[in-house]
Amino acid sequence: MSYRRTIKIVCGFAGGSAVLVVAAAAAEYQGCFGHTRAARWSLFNVLRAAQPAGNRTVESTGNAWDFNWDKRDLSALLTNGKKEVVSEDPSSEQDNGKPKATRNILLIRHSQYNLSGNGDHERILTPLGREQAEFTGQRLAALGLKYDIMVHSTMARATETANIISKYLPGVELVSCDLLREGAPIEPVPPVTHWKPDAVQYHEDGARIEAAFRRYIHRADPKQKEDSYEIIVCHANVIRYFVCRALQFPPEGWLRIGLNNGSITWLTVRPSGRVALRTLGDSGFMPPDKLTRT
Amino acid sequence: MSYRRTIKIVCGFAGGSAVLVVAAAAAEYQGCFGHTRAARWSLFNVLRAAQPAGNRTVESTGNAWDFNWDKRDLSALLTNGKKEVVSEDPSSEQDNGKPKATRNILLIRHSQYNLSGNGDHERILTPLGREQAEFTGQRLAALGLKYDIMVHSTMARATETANIISKYLPGVELVSCDLLREGAPIEPVPPVTHWKPDAVQYHEDGARIEAAFRRYIHRADPKQKEDSYEIIVCHANVIRYFVCRALQFPPEGWLRIGLNNGSITWLTVRPSGRVALRTLGDSGFMPPDKLTRT
Repeated sequence: MSYRRTIKIVCGFAGGSAVLVVAAAAAEYQGCFGHTRAARWSLFNVLRAAQPAGNRTVESTGNAWDFNWDKRDLSALLTNGKKEVVSEDPSSEQDNGKPKATRNILLIRHSQYNLSGNGDHERILTPLGREQAEFTGQRLAALGLKYDIMVHSTMARATETANIISKYLPGVELVSCDLLREGAPIEPVPPVTHWKPDAVQYHEDGARIEAAFRRYIHRADPKQKEDSYEIIVCHANVIRYFVCRALQFPPEGWLRIGLNNGSITWLTVRPSGRVALRTLGDSGFMPPDKLTRT
Repeated sequence: MSYRRTIKIVCGFAGGSAVLVVAAAAAEYQGCFGHTRAARWSLFNVLRAAQPAGNRTVESTGNAWDFNWDKRDLSALLTNGKKEVVSEDPSSEQDNGKPKATRNILLIRHSQYNLSGNGDHERILTPLGREQAEFTGQRLAALGLKYDIMVHSTMARATETANIISKYLPGVELVSCDLLREGAPIEPVPPVTHWKPDAVQYHEDGARIEAAFRRYIHRADPKQKEDSYEIIVCHANVIRYFVCRALQFPPEGWLRIGLNNGSITWLTVRPSGRVALRTLGDSGFMPPDKLTRT
């Protein structure tokens, strides 16, 4: 199922049956994360489906912290008149329904590519870009984490980067996702003169990249027993937007951040919904003469 | 001159003679940056002295960007009825008085230290901490940048880290500064339970760390001809607060960021006042088994 189709389905039923919305979302979730996680969509999604479906915009929390930013804060759901939904599920009494695991999300920027290529399929990695991806793969392997999955944008440069990294992480499932493609997430503040996407680009990309954020950046499902380590290979704008959104900093500030090619940005999401940025644009594992930002 | 004395002098004359305020600040600036830069305090500081001295609090800019965040935006000063001050200085017509250089500020977190030490002087680096500082020094040298100066906090762990790094950067002036000592910059949002400083700690440290930010993080002086590279060796809370303030993100969000020991955080400040974060907590140059966060 393409992301375009999914978005249409989700939006189409927004005012109608919440169960159908969740069914469509669950199908797509399975598509990107493989079959192993499909079983996690249970009590949690019933609870989420019971939430009002009207939240279609990015909310700014000012200087406060919204613990229910990912709409998975069970206490918020329980105090919102949804207690009867929980009691319908027999498993809720066994594990209290609260997330217990921490999600580690390692965001990798694709490595250097041929900027003058005609269209995405010609914008493949340069020889240096392929070398950078080798360094990134070696570093991820050396970190020795128990990676659960690697998701990558379907654009050529991200796919190629992920394929090279994959050589160093045998056994880690590799899946692609259209939502993660590069784009214009939101008009940057302060504005810049050298990069001026059309309004329609923000209009389309903005909703898609926000949808990617909501799919990938959230606390663990209550059924997740162990901490997870997920790799996402995508793009500078997407990663910078994710970081601002996850830390509840103004998303318009994404262009105040720069990222080297092949760099690692590490977010953790605690069971409580707390988020921490452990590193941003780490590329210290590359020799200085291999560093680029294109 | 200690930072305590300087702060008293600056505050004492806040409502009086702006010239005296600048004189005290200039003396302290020289103390921390050595004698080579004292000559830069000219037109620029006369202009700054002419600004109202009442700005004592951290201002939130919401989702906007304040180009005059460091009170060095000459266009803001000129449009604020200060044109006659500029015309008094003969050099203003030669170079137009605008900054032309970019400042690169590399913020280094001290490496691992003995947490159980009794007081600062006993909280010295562990053997691993000394090893980490060697890695950081090697990386900074390998980056091959033309470093202008290294400033470090006067706390034992930062001093020791800076001294080890200094071995790899011969000829780079090394100076210490009390303003950069560790502390409680501002109550974090969301709050945490494991770390609860007294109100008086925020009261004292908050003003001091904000003073450190204003001293070290700003655009280049108009007289600076070339881009500069300055190293500041200090502490996790100080660096995290600096990053939030420099990017104009809510400073209360500083505890959403984590930093490895000996890691490199790189800020650039453009002549226009634009700020970019190039990397945060980069420690990829250390073998994974040497990474710590204590």
